[in-house]
Amino acid sequence: MSEFANRQPSKQTLATLTVKKPATKSTPASKPATASVRRLGPAQHRYWAPENRIVIENVYPEIDGGRYPVKRTVGDTFEVWADIFRDGHDVTAAAVVFRPIGAGEWQYEPMTFTENDRWGGQVTLSRNARYEYTIEAWTDVFASWRRDVIKKLDAEQRVDLEFAEGGELVERILSEGKGERAAALIRLIPNGALSAPPSRAHALLSDDVAAFMAAHGPREDISRYYRTLEVIVDREEATFAAWYEMFPRSQGTDPTRSATFADCAKRLPEIQRMGFDVVYLVPIHPIGEVNRKGPNNTLNPGPHDPGSPYAIGSHEGGHDAVHADLGTVEDFKQFVGKVRDRGMEVALDFAIQCAPDHPWVKEHPEWFTFRPDGSIKYAENPPKKYQDIVNVNFYGPHREALWNALRDVLLLWAERGVRIFRVDNPHTKPLPFWEWVIREVQFEYPDVLFLSEAFTRPKMMKALAKAGFSQSYTYFTWRNFKPELTEYLTELTQEECREYLRPNFFTNTPDILPEILQKGGQPAFKIRFALAATLAGVYGIYNGFELCEGRGIAGTEDYQDSEKYQYKVWDWNRRGNIKPFITAINRIRRENPALQKYFSLEFWRADNDSVLFYSKMTPEQDNVIFIAVNLDPFETHDVTLWFPIAELGLGDNDAYEAEELLTGTKHLWRGSPQHVRLDPDSNPVQIFRISVWKHVDYRTPDR
Amino acid sequence: MSEFANRQPSKQTLATLTVKKPATKSTPASKPATASVRRLGPAQHRYWAPENRIVIENVYPEIDGGRYPVKRTVGDTFEVWADIFRDGHDVTAAAVVFRPIGAGEWQYEPMTFTENDRWGGQVTLSRNARYEYTIEAWTDVFASWRRDVIKKLDAEQRVDLEFAEGGELVERILSEGKGERAAALIRLIPNGALSAPPSRAHALLSDDVAAFMAAHGPREDISRYYRTLEVIVDREEATFAAWYEMFPRSQGTDPTRSATFADCAKRLPEIQRMGFDVVYLVPIHPIGEVNRKGPNNTLNPGPHDPGSPYAIGSHEGGHDAVHADLGTVEDFKQFVGKVRDRGMEVALDFAIQCAPDHPWVKEHPEWFTFRPDGSIKYAENPPKKYQDIVNVNFYGPHREALWNALRDVLLLWAERGVRIFRVDNPHTKPLPFWEWVIREVQFEYPDVLFLSEAFTRPKMMKALAKAGFSQSYTYFTWRNFKPELTEYLTELTQEECREYLRPNFFTNTPDILPEILQKGGQPAFKIRFALAATLAGVYGIYNGFELCEGRGIAGTEDYQDSEKYQYKVWDWNRRGNIKPFITAINRIRRENPALQKYFSLEFWRADNDSVLFYSKMTPEQDNVIFIAVNLDPFETHDVTLWFPIAELGLGDNDAYEAEELLTGTKHLWRGSPQHVRLDPDSNPVQIFRISVWKHVDYRTPDR
Repeated sequence: MSEFANRQPSKQTLATLTVKKPATKSTPASKPATASVRRLGPAQHRYWAPENRIVIENVYPEIDGGRYPVKRTVGDTFEVWADIFRDGHDVTAAAVVFRPIGAGEWQYEPMTFTENDRWGGQVTLSRNARYEYTIEAWTDVFASWRRDVIKKLDAEQRVDLEFAEGGELVERILSEGKGERAAALIRLIPNGALSAPPSRAHALLSDDVAAFMAAHGPREDISRYYRTLEVIVDREEATFAAWYEMFPRSQGTDPTRSATFADCAKRLPEIQRMGFDVVYLVPIHPIGEVNRKGPNNTLNPGPHDPGSPYAIGSHEGGHDAVHADLGTVEDFKQFVGKVRDRGMEVALDFAIQCAPDHPWVKEHPEWFTFRPDGSIKYAENPPKKYQDIVNVNFYGPHREALWNALRDVLLLWAERGVRIFRVDNPHTKPLPFWEWVIREVQFEYPDVLFLSEAFTRPKMMKALAKAGFSQSYTYFTWRNFKPELTEYLTELTQEECREYLRPNFFTNTPDILPEILQKGGQPAFKIRFALAATLAGVYGIYNGFELCEGRGIAGTEDYQDSEKYQYKVWDWNRRGNIKPFITAINRIRRENPALQKYFSLEFWRADNDSVLFYSKMTPEQDNVIFIAVNLDPFETHDVTLWFPIAELGLGDNDAYEAEELLTGTKHLWRGSPQHVRLDPDSNPVQIFRISVWKHVDYRTPDR
Repeated sequence: MSEFANRQPSKQTLATLTVKKPATKSTPASKPATASVRRLGPAQHRYWAPENRIVIENVYPEIDGGRYPVKRTVGDTFEVWADIFRDGHDVTAAAVVFRPIGAGEWQYEPMTFTENDRWGGQVTLSRNARYEYTIEAWTDVFASWRRDVIKKLDAEQRVDLEFAEGGELVERILSEGKGERAAALIRLIPNGALSAPPSRAHALLSDDVAAFMAAHGPREDISRYYRTLEVIVDREEATFAAWYEMFPRSQGTDPTRSATFADCAKRLPEIQRMGFDVVYLVPIHPIGEVNRKGPNNTLNPGPHDPGSPYAIGSHEGGHDAVHADLGTVEDFKQFVGKVRDRGMEVALDFAIQCAPDHPWVKEHPEWFTFRPDGSIKYAENPPKKYQDIVNVNFYGPHREALWNALRDVLLLWAERGVRIFRVDNPHTKPLPFWEWVIREVQFEYPDVLFLSEAFTRPKMMKALAKAGFSQSYTYFTWRNFKPELTEYLTELTQEECREYLRPNFFTNTPDILPEILQKGGQPAFKIRFALAATLAGVYGIYNGFELCEGRGIAGTEDYQDSEKYQYKVWDWNRRGNIKPFITAINRIRRENPALQKYFSLEFWRADNDSVLFYSKMTPEQDNVIFIAVNLDPFETHDVTLWFPIAELGLGDNDAYEAEELLTGTKHLWRGSPQHVRLDPDSNPVQIFRISVWKHVDYRTPDR
């Protein structure tokens, strides 16, 4: 469906649009009462500029008429397109105009006409910063002159006057005197060349002079697109990274007490070996004691129960503090350093809710809401109550101080070395807050990334991404079957949201143990892992996934004995783990640039409803990967995969090599349909790297 | 193709988008050089407002992010839609906020939630004016409270504190004292009702109080859409009218001299009888004598040749004057009055070019461009030269005076009673000029309509409509066959351009005698007329069409002995004319509201590639018209038409009456496929008005 169709009312409601109330026949010549109003209305004021003679419109990329930035990563070639046209016949030129915000002069990159008034240009985004960009177009006076003269010469018309006019255009630059420009032009137009008609024609119409004048000649009708747009240029990890989520307090060996940052550090070699890039820690702050939750979300905890780390704050400190059981701030910084030394990095949770005993409740009661009886208002979604949590009032009279304090929490952890924040439930906090705070933090630390943990309605999820979140949790967690995966991934990779919403595919979270993982056993874990890691550039697992932990509370997506409410000790090498599989897939991701290019995803025909068959490839097709996944964790499926050989430049009889990267087996195939068998226990997934065998024809042996 | 797909680069070029230059691995924890930059960038400044807590986006209608107005007509019900959502669970309310520009207070019309965060509202556009509109949304505090209390009561939770809170919300209004509002609320909540728990609950939760509080209760988080949009509300004739174009000087009986306005007036009864609403006159100004053109566009006119009326201006006067041969300004005004007395109106040509002897060339040489030898620059499109015309320089140093002068020409003719301007070649004049001048004129005369005569590239045609033209010439003139007509009309009626571009379908113009009219004889004229008059709401013919004048200059679209360059005398009753056909179709248009609703066009299956089959109907389906046109002027076609009976609420065995409106014959039909024969000579077109025969079941005889 087109975007316009999305926006317009349904046919049914549209019908009413054209229902007219009986209107008295208008009397054309009667002067209406508002005749004295003669001014530009407010809407028009913002845009209308008489000097913008050249129309610049339909700009790509542009989100909601420039309201929100698009996103790219450092080093990207950024394509900018627009419809550019004007009245009359003069020769138009155009450029993408851009600069990192706050970084001085505008830079120009020329745009090129393609067809139907469409122009395109490319900018290299070399800095991790917010850029602004727009488009400028102008009349190339000399080129217009030159084109017309050539036409007239072809038609054997007189052109004396024309050459006088062209000479004037050039003289203007020559008369600048000793400047470098004038000197360059003098080299192209030797002294005296303009005085004699034959040499004048020769000099003025030369390609060199044309090129010089295009760059330095007079520009008229300079028109600038009426909006300045933004692109957030993030570092590469925004689009390619593997995340490992952990509960720090459960990384040790004693089930009766909290593990420490030192225990966490001991796990790093293994996490690195599996191929992860990001170690994401759930909140590490002091945990509230008032209304603390007990194991399995019960309301009466024992004296040694640790409580949920999402009930942040106690007399020991708030969002700026570290839970004493984990260590000190210094210990945390050391842990961050150890992670970084291994080429990985730490992501931290940012959860704005407070425990009732959070220091802010006493220090800043004005940031909270109190009830008529003087009690504090707990979080609730009637009839549900969340009594271990109180929410700040984002729009109270002390809004500014509160927002600044929250920003300062982020800046503090950034100072302590954190460059990724996973934000808890951002959809229950105001969008303008996120738009502001992400901008504030990124102007200081452009390399900070924000992951939006919103599982909510689709428009809110997109709105958060538009507000500035670098990455977003998605519905992937619940998309298991071929039609729904195909539809959702097509939306994410082909529709407009791809310009600003970057999915981070999580297989599971502490709150979500999806049905397929509860029921599908080890094959399900392999299937879901392979999908996450090959469909998206960024993906994550929550610890225990590698062990195929699938014990849920019946009828829910909650884990049995969840770490959220109790200490836990894991056997990281327990039987049935899929660590070798994870390691292999992460290695394949790293070795194949195609798997790092999210947009290149395409789905292909597989003659079996349980098999998803898709490809990723580099633009040059020097790395071409096809992936077949058996979505059924229970049964083996035989399937014919239809490789799009024509798209690979292959004829029906040309051979291509398909190397299955998990097993290392190779096939030499011809033709589109190929048969494979996907057994959930042994090989639910096959990943083929395709290389085309050069066809040598003895009649043209050099080829 | 979606709009996003239209904007984004092709797959081929997109591929290059993700090519990364080798970037050095970023070092997350190093503080970058721009750390001191901490401010909002310019793009953001325009929109970001922390108080806009509720997201309002994806607004319909909105053109280019609010850059351009949409168009409607007086009396229309104007639907406005938007995605509206917010953080958290509070109850949201929203309204369309609108007013005629410059007409005081904003008015509010409530919006209603439909599904998936989509809201819609309706405004009646009662005035012929430019309106501005936007959307406001807010938290309905009382409704939020009420919903939560009801949920808690259902869950049998304690609600004492809640009722205290609800009481406070109501007390706020009661405490306003003697105001009308408070009085109304006191009537709903009797004295003392709030003090006793049972009556309090009853009083606070009543539907009446809920309705009262929705209208008058406290609103928080008031958020306004970040753009104010515009809708041009034109009088009805903007979307429904039949035009008749004439050369005033050729409306008489003497081939050696110009006819006069009095001669033109003599033709009015006939034009009215045929059913036309608008009499459009080509330019009526003095015609230049310098470089005047002779018959058939020759360069050496005889002394009595009148020249092209598009070479405007001579020593007799310019754009403000009337050609003496036609009469005086007073004669013109009388003519306008006579037209109006018949319920018709006059449209005038507005052609900005000047003859070399136009008074402005002497009075305002600064508005023109001169060459190095002091000669004036003629219009040209090398190697073509138009030496009878010089163009003003819209962007010279005296731009403002020139633009004002051109505006004043329009205002002068408006003062003389003209309310429609057909603008000649607007695409060769700057868009910003049109945007400005149309606005200026319409603020003084909101009932003035502008028709854009641009036959040029599609984006420019749309840009002119966006700039404010009320109607546009189209490619209809050259669309003769089924696929191209279907495709083009679908674009015009279903894509976004329908919000601002209103087609005026001309069958022919003084410059365009299409091939089909040169070759197809009388049947072609009937076919093209019927298509124009039934596909579009507004259409026009150029005089001679009703006489089936088809003599062109071979290999061109020019008329033989065109009126553009010579006097002509027509026999308005000559043999072979199609005046009765024109009269009939115009009558059918007037009698059938469906034919006045442009958007309702739909195409249906006809089993013959030469037959176009389409419908128009009112939203209530109380006027349902189906039209079958034989597009082939040479041969009879038998065709099966597939009537969409299911859409009309009919089963296969239900009967419907089809009255063919050109002949008055009636059919009683059942089922979808119906066979008709379309003979180009006798009935190339059939127009069916469908009425459904009520099915009476004896088991339910009352039905």
